[in-house]
Amino acid sequence: MPSTTTPVSIRRITDDSASDAEDLLAVEEPLEIVVAARARGAEARAERRLGITMRTPGHDRELAVGLLFAEGIIAGPADVVAIEEGEGPSGGLVRVALRDEVTVDLGRTERALAVASASCGVCGKASIDVASFAPPSPLARGAPRLAPRVVHGLAARLRDAQAVFGRTGGLHAAALFDAGGALADLREDVGRHNAVDKLIGAALLAGKLPDPGAVLMVSGRAGFELVQKALRASIPVMVAVGAPSSLAAELASAHGMTLVGFARDGRFNVYAGRERVAVPAEAAS
Amino acid sequence: MPSTTTPVSIRRITDDSASDAEDLLAVEEPLEIVVAARARGAEARAERRLGITMRTPGHDRELAVGLLFAEGIIAGPADVVAIEEGEGPSGGLVRVALRDEVTVDLGRTERALAVASASCGVCGKASIDVASFAPPSPLARGAPRLAPRVVHGLAARLRDAQAVFGRTGGLHAAALFDAGGALADLREDVGRHNAVDKLIGAALLAGKLPDPGAVLMVSGRAGFELVQKALRASIPVMVAVGAPSSLAAELASAHGMTLVGFARDGRFNVYAGRERVAVPAEAAS
Repeated sequence: MPSTTTPVSIRRITDDSASDAEDLLAVEEPLEIVVAARARGAEARAERRLGITMRTPGHDRELAVGLLFAEGIIAGPADVVAIEEGEGPSGGLVRVALRDEVTVDLGRTERALAVASASCGVCGKASIDVASFAPPSPLARGAPRLAPRVVHGLAARLRDAQAVFGRTGGLHAAALFDAGGALADLREDVGRHNAVDKLIGAALLAGKLPDPGAVLMVSGRAGFELVQKALRASIPVMVAVGAPSSLAAELASAHGMTLVGFARDGRFNVYAGRERVAVPAEAAS
Repeated sequence: MPSTTTPVSIRRITDDSASDAEDLLAVEEPLEIVVAARARGAEARAERRLGITMRTPGHDRELAVGLLFAEGIIAGPADVVAIEEGEGPSGGLVRVALRDEVTVDLGRTERALAVASASCGVCGKASIDVASFAPPSPLARGAPRLAPRVVHGLAARLRDAQAVFGRTGGLHAAALFDAGGALADLREDVGRHNAVDKLIGAALLAGKLPDPGAVLMVSGRAGFELVQKALRASIPVMVAVGAPSSLAAELASAHGMTLVGFARDGRFNVYAGRERVAVPAEAAS
């Protein structure tokens, strides 16, 4: 596993002192993603460089699979016949070969990928395109049902599990929990969206999604595209330590997904899908 | 000026209570950017849809100019002959017409823009491409020189100036200060990169950049692309409330730019260009 942090020499300055020190920074490096697939109408598979994402090294295969899934290029891990890691002209490279039956609109895909692989990006897809990212399996209404004490505990569990976070302050985290608050898996990255793609890619490759009881927790804000990624993976509940955006709340609401924000310090706000969150009285009984 | 927040009905849950409440969310909506320019080798100007960015409405012209400048499509505001706002198929639209003398490689541009307009995006540009974003005016060595007390005060001044921030917790801010700590201008957005593009776009249109004494302050982390945008605008000092990434520190260092991180609570770390920061003893004298 490549290192996610790198030491640097810094000067640390307070009100009355300046000292030389060593610090650790989150590593940010380019990863090129290449897809070998048949173009629409073509006879044979061709390789195409789809884009470069700036990411924290590690779990690159999972990142590529999560990204291709989020973008609707693959319907699941069964569409992938091979994943290879290699060296690109400017850093790491992952080559994903797709089943012959999967045809890709490479023009559309190239643009979508360039966009989606941004560390935190949303652009290039208008809200009107949202329908194309609707969940492959519809969300079960009212399930899972979460006790408030479980939601209260998620931020602390995420933080405890983020060994790296405390050292650099620079890595975003995404984790999957079950409805009882047990941690299933966690990924970190300098980019919020990469962390979610890595997490979902790993769960897909392990056959653990879709899971009608899954809860996605993210360490930062909940923007439109993170909600879109969760929906695409049919994850019924997303909990963010930070604030949702207006479009994130609208999208979650439109698809019957539960969106929780500001989950920290023993409180949280429910922005959509409140029927999945028990009220404290119910939870106590 | 369009509203940057929108009211929503939420359920607020604590350890022992659940209540219905009104909350404000940061607005996130699509903005389409269209450039009217001559393609390389073409006789006439043609319009081309360059991408859609998800942004907080307001200062859309400045966002478009800042983005075109950051991407190297324009060398400055003199390259722009007209900017119009309108309605796009999925939300707002800004149309930027360029001087006939400015020829644009539309293929390259389309991809770069799709990438760069991501709210937080970096992908699509490898570190090897960094050279093309080097500052148009070289940074003056050793200037400006900042007193630590000025840097200590920036985070508080940024926060005080962020009227909206306290209400939603969802908007990132970017501000320009002078070397004495006086606020020149501030922009907010649901996307960190949009806030910087709006700020730099506004300063360019007002003829206030390049400024060899400018200090850029950002409310979040300092990733590779934010440093790139600052460098492109020949801003010699960037101060972040959060952590820089490894590549951000490398890029700043390579170009002689000063990069400060974790500037909060009376302390900060200098990751590059430490000669511009006075030590506390010097500052006191």
